Amino acid sequence: MFNLTWSPSEKKIARAAFDHALAVANEKRLAEFKAKASAVTSADDLWKIEEALREDRETFDKMFDYRYSQLPVVFAWTIREGYLEDSAIAGLSEDKRDIIRRMVETKWER
Amino acid sequence: MFNLTWSPSEKKIARAAFDHALAVANEKRLAEFKAKASAVTSADDLWKIEEALREDRETFDKMFDYRYSQLPVVFAWTIREGYLEDSAIAGLSEDKRDIIRRMVETKWER
Repeated sequence: MFNLTWSPSEKKIARAAFDHALAVANEKRLAEFKAKASAVTSADDLWKIEEALREDRETFDKMFDYRYSQLPVVFAWTIREGYLEDSAIAGLSEDKRDIIRRMVETKWER
Repeated sequence: MFNLTWSPSEKKIARAAFDHALAVANEKRLAEFKAKASAVTSADDLWKIEEALREDRETFDKMFDYRYSQLPVVFAWTIREGYLEDSAIAGLSEDKRDIIRRMVETKWER
C-alpha cells in the first residue's frame, strides 16, 4: 500500500510499537470477554459470545498485519482504537507520521 | 432412519423428554463455559474458548434434531451424555425403548 523506506532504527520503533499495541489490544479483549462471560445466563448468550469472539479474532488477524507496507494503516487503526499512543511512533520519519496522522483523522468505515 | 409409529401419548412423552434433555444439556454447557471462562488468562485462551463454543454448538445443532425418525438416536445420545434419565422415556413402546437401549449400549464413534 505504501512505498516507504524504513531505516533500522525505524524498524525497531515499529516493532516495539506494534508489539505494544497488540499487547494492549489483547488485554482489552480479555477484559471485555471476562465481563461478557460473567454476565452470561443462557445458552443463547453463548452463541453471542462465540460470534463476538470470532469477529474480534477476524478483525485482529486482519489488522495486526506486520508488513511494512501495512504498518501505517496498523498504527493509524491502533491509535484510533486507543491501543497505541501517538508518542510511541515519534521516532518515525515525518512522511510516515504524516500519513499515519492523516489516516487517524480520516473518518473511515470499519 | 427409523420407521416407527408414534402415538399421541408417546409424542407427548417424547416432547417432554427432548425439552428436558436440551435444558439439562444447556445448563451443563453453561456451567462448563463459566468454569473455562473464569480460567482464561491470555488471548490464546480465547481462541480455544471460541473453538469449544463452535464445536459444542455444531454438536447440539446436529444432535438435538426433533424429527421422529431421529428421536431414538437423540434419546440414546442424551442418555449416554447424562442429559436424560432412562425413566423419562419409560412410556414409549417396547420396540422404541429396545432400539434406544441397544444404541445406548453400543460403543460408537462421536
